[in-house]
Amino acid sequence: MKLRVRAELVYRFDPPTDAIYKIQVAHWPGQDILEETLTFDPPVDFHEDEDVDFGARTLRCHVEGEVKLTYEAVVENGVLKGLPPSVSQHDWGELPAEVLPYLQPSRYCPSDQFGRFVTREFGDTAGGARVLAILNWITENVDYEHGVSDTETTAARTFIDRAGVCRDFTHLGMTLCRASGIPARAVSAFAHQLSPPDFHAIFEVWLDNGWWLVDPTGLAPVEGLVRIACGRDAADIAFLTTQERCQMVRQSVTVAEA
Amino acid sequence: MKLRVRAELVYRFDPPTDAIYKIQVAHWPGQDILEETLTFDPPVDFHEDEDVDFGARTLRCHVEGEVKLTYEAVVENGVLKGLPPSVSQHDWGELPAEVLPYLQPSRYCPSDQFGRFVTREFGDTAGGARVLAILNWITENVDYEHGVSDTETTAARTFIDRAGVCRDFTHLGMTLCRASGIPARAVSAFAHQLSPPDFHAIFEVWLDNGWWLVDPTGLAPVEGLVRIACGRDAADIAFLTTQERCQMVRQSVTVAEA
Amino acid sequence: MKLRVRAELVYRFDPPTDAIYKIQVAHWPGQDILEETLTFDPPVDFHEDEDVDFGARTLRCHVEGEVKLTYEAVVENGVLKGLPPSVSQHDWGELPAEVLPYLQPSRYCPSDQFGRFVTREFGDTAGGARVLAILNWITENVDYEHGVSDTETTAARTFIDRAGVCRDFTHLGMTLCRASGIPARAVSAFAHQLSPPDFHAIFEVWLDNGWWLVDPTGLAPVEGLVRIACGRDAADIAFLTTQERCQMVRQSVTVAEA
Amino acid sequence: MKLRVRAELVYRFDPPTDAIYKIQVAHWPGQDILEETLTFDPPVDFHEDEDVDFGARTLRCHVEGEVKLTYEAVVENGVLKGLPPSVSQHDWGELPAEVLPYLQPSRYCPSDQFGRFVTREFGDTAGGARVLAILNWITENVDYEHGVSDTETTAARTFIDRAGVCRDFTHLGMTLCRASGIPARAVSAFAHQLSPPDFHAIFEVWLDNGWWLVDPTGLAPVEGLVRIACGRDAADIAFLTTQERCQMVRQSVTVAEA
Repeated sequence: MKLRVRAELVYRFDPPTDAIYKIQVAHWPGQDILEETLTFDPPVDFHEDEDVDFGARTLRCHVEGEVKLTYEAVVENGVLKGLPPSVSQHDWGELPAEVLPYLQPSRYCPSDQFGRFVTREFGDTAGGARVLAILNWITENVDYEHGVSDTETTAARTFIDRAGVCRDFTHLGMTLCRASGIPARAVSAFAHQLSPPDFHAIFEVWLDNGWWLVDPTGLAPVEGLVRIACGRDAADIAFLTTQERCQMVRQSVTVAEA
Repeated sequence: MKLRVRAELVYRFDPPTDAIYKIQVAHWPGQDILEETLTFDPPVDFHEDEDVDFGARTLRCHVEGEVKLTYEAVVENGVLKGLPPSVSQHDWGELPAEVLPYLQPSRYCPSDQFGRFVTREFGDTAGGARVLAILNWITENVDYEHGVSDTETTAARTFIDRAGVCRDFTHLGMTLCRASGIPARAVSAFAHQLSPPDFHAIFEVWLDNGWWLVDPTGLAPVEGLVRIACGRDAADIAFLTTQERCQMVRQSVTVAEA
Repeated sequence: MKLRVRAELVYRFDPPTDAIYKIQVAHWPGQDILEETLTFDPPVDFHEDEDVDFGARTLRCHVEGEVKLTYEAVVENGVLKGLPPSVSQHDWGELPAEVLPYLQPSRYCPSDQFGRFVTREFGDTAGGARVLAILNWITENVDYEHGVSDTETTAARTFIDRAGVCRDFTHLGMTLCRASGIPARAVSAFAHQLSPPDFHAIFEVWLDNGWWLVDPTGLAPVEGLVRIACGRDAADIAFLTTQERCQMVRQSVTVAEA
Repeated sequence: MKLRVRAELVYRFDPPTDAIYKIQVAHWPGQDILEETLTFDPPVDFHEDEDVDFGARTLRCHVEGEVKLTYEAVVENGVLKGLPPSVSQHDWGELPAEVLPYLQPSRYCPSDQFGRFVTREFGDTAGGARVLAILNWITENVDYEHGVSDTETTAARTFIDRAGVCRDFTHLGMTLCRASGIPARAVSAFAHQLSPPDFHAIFEVWLDNGWWLVDPTGLAPVEGLVRIACGRDAADIAFLTTQERCQMVRQSVTVAEA
C-alpha cells in the first residue's frame, strides 16, 4: 500500500534540553521510502543513527524554546499479512540470539508475574493460535478509553484496570506473549485509518522464523501500518524523549493513501 | 591479575525445560581467557552464542532431570581501574547509539521515578563525581542483608527497604545513574575475595567514552572482577533462566589467584 | 455446633518486645463460650480488651525469651447459614454508620482499582447473588497454593498471580465486594475440618441488615466456623503482632467436635 | 480562636449516585460551634451521623444532576498547641484499645515497609522528638507541588517522588510515625491562612495520653486548624465520596477570623 505520512510536532523546550526523536519511517525490508523530508523550524543541529536490526532511525539534538519538527514521507509499506493461527512457536534453543531479550520482562511488561495466568487461560494453545487467543482476550476484556492510564502505567495495572490506550494494549499483549515463551517487541507506527490519527503503538511477535506485526487494539488494519521504531516497551519507542520536561504546543499526525 | 574461576551448578529440571546459562567468562577486550573447560554431566546438546557488543556467551539447551554443569577457566582480567571523580559525563548527543538503551528504565530499575531525588541529593555533581556520590550514598544508606529482598524486588523497593543483596545494590545504583542521565548496565561477574563466594552483580557506567565497572556493594576489589554477561538488569544477566521451574541441588563458585 | 478449640503458640522474643495476641473466641451474639482457659508459660502480665462492636478480645503484654501461650475453649458456635443469593444489598444511605469503613480500600485491599472489573464481570448481579458470583469466580480462577504469596501480598497481586492462601483469598474476595459497594470485613477464625488445621482467614459481608460469614477458599464448612477477631484486612486480625521481629518455635491449632 | 468557615461544593452527579459528604466541623471537645448552616440546592434528603470517638459528622444522600452544598459555621476552635519534643511515647500495652488501629498500615500508608528506614534515620529519638524529627525530615526532603501525585498515590511513592500536596505529606508523616510505633490518624480540617484556601489534610499522633495535631506541610498555623473528620488515611476522610463518578463544577473554601 502506498501511503503518505506526515507528522508535525511543536514543542516548547524551556529549559533547553537534550532530545531524542524517533519519528521517521524505518528502513525495514519491504517497507520502501519513496520520498522523505524533515525540517526543523528554527533549524537545529542534529545527528541521525540507524539501528542495524530494525532500521529504526534516531534523531538526537539539543533544543531550546519553541521548536517545530515537520516530517513527511511517501512509503510503499509492502505486504503485511494477518497472523495465521497455524504459525508455529519455537523452542528457546531455536531462536536467533538477538531475539532472546524480547522474552524478558521490561519496565512496563512484568511478564514474570503472568506465568500462571497464561497457562490457565491459554494453556491449550501455542504459536499463532496462542497470540490470537491473547489478542482476542484483550478485545473482550479491555476497554479502549483515554484518561484511565498515564505514562507510568504497567501491564499489571492495565490487567486490573481493564481499560487503556494503544500503549497499554501493547504492553499487556507483549506481557502475555512473553509469559507464554513468545518473544514480543513494541513497535511505533504510522497507521492508516486510525481515528483519531496519532502515532500508534503495536507489537510484533517472533514465530516461525519471523516477526509478525499485530495490533492489539484492532483499531487500524494491519495492511496500513508503517514501522517507525522498535524496542522492549514504550520506554524505547517514544517519539520524543527529553532530559528536562517540555510542553507540547501542538501535534498532528496524518496518514493517507498516496 | 591472573585468576582461576570455577562454577559448579547442579540443578534438577523436573519437568524438562528449555534453559539458558550465562556463566562463561566474556570475550571482553583486555580480559584474556588462557584456559577454559565446560562439562555437562550427563552430557547435554547445547549451542553457544556470543554477543558482538560485550562478548558475553549464552548457552542454550534442553535439560531434564538432575544436571551438573562445571565450568573452569584461567583468566588474565586486565587492568581494571577505580572510577576517578574527574571523568566527564556526555550530553545525550555525544553517546554512541548502542549505549542509549542503558539510559532507559527497565524491569527492576524505574529510573523515571527518581529524577527529583537525584537532583536534590546529588545536584551539584556530574560525571565520575556523580557516580561516586551515588555509590557513597548507597554505602551509607543501604544494609547488605540477605532475606529482605527476593527475585522480584525493584530498586524502588530497595530505596524504601534500605537493605538488600548485590543484585539490589546494582539495581539501585543503576537507577540513580540513569535518572542522572548516565548510561548504566548490569554486569554479572566472578569476583576475587568475595565472601561468601558466589556469582556477583555489579554495573558499569558510560563516561568519557568508555564503560567503567563499579561495585556498589564494595564487597570485592575492582581489580579482581571478571566480566560474564551484561544487560539492562537482572532479567538479562541471570546465570540460569528456565521456562519451567527448577530446583537447585547445590551450587559453588570459586575464584582464586592462578 | 459444639466445638473444642485449642491453640498453642510457642515463640521466641529476642529482643524483648511489646506484643498483641488475638486468639480468643469472640463474644459474638449466638456464639457461646462454655469453658475457656488461657495460660502463659512462663507467666506474663497482660491486659485484655474487648471491642464493643464484634466482641473480639485483644491481649497485650511485654514478652521476652521463649513464651508458650496455650488457649483452650469449648464453644457453641450457634447457627451459621450459608449466604442465599436472594439476600439484598443496601444503598449506602441505609447502612449503619459503623459499617461504612468496610466499604473503603485498605492496606491489602485496593478496592478503588477494581470498579471496572466488577462491573464487567458481575454487572448483572447484586446482593447475595453478587457475593456468590465473586466467590465462584475466585474458586474458578485462583489456586490454593502455599509459597506464592507472603505477608505483603495485596489483592491486586493475587488477582494477577491467580494463587495464594486463605489470607489472599479473603483479601481478594473483600476487594471485589467493596468495589461492588458491599461492605466486607476480614475475620479470623477457628475452623472445624480445615486441613491442615490452622488459624483461618475468612470474611463477612453486610447484606440485608446483617453480617454474613463466607469462606472464599471453600476449605471449611461454614457451620464449623468460630469467630476470633475482625478488621479491615490482615493488618487488623493477625493472631500475633510484635514491635520487634520474633521467631516461631512451634504452633498448633486444633478444632474438634466437643 | 474564633473562625468563620465556609465551603461551597457544586458537583454534577450524572448518573445519579449515593454520596457521602464529610465537611461539617466536628463536635470535638474544646472545639465549639457557635453558629452553623447547611443548605442543599436543590434540596436533598439526607441523614447525618456522628461518630462517638471524634465527633465527626457524615452526611449521606442520593444525589442527581447538579447539586450545590453550602456549609457555613462560626467556631471557637479552642487552644491548639504545637507539639513539644518532650512529650513521651507509650508502650503498646499502655495505649487505649481504640487507638490500636492507628498503629497499623492502611491503603495509602504502608508503614510495615518503613521499619528499617525510621530506625536508621530517627533511631536516637522517641515521642514528641521523634515526630518533630519526622516533620523536619519531610520539610527538608519533600517539595509541596501540585501535579506530581494523584488520588492513588501512596506514601511509598511520595517517599520516592519527594513531592506532593497536603494529602501526600500527611500520608508520609503518618507512615513514618506508625513505623515508629506511634499511633497516627488522618484529619481533614479547615485551616486559617492556608493559601490557596482549600480543605486541608493533616494528622494527629497519640502521645502522653492525648492526640496532638500536626501539619506536615507547615502551610497553616496549628492555632487556626478546625477539625472535620478523622480516619486511617484519605480513604476515610474524603469530603466527598460517591459510588459513581461525578464532575466538579466549582468549589470554594474560606476561613476567616470571626
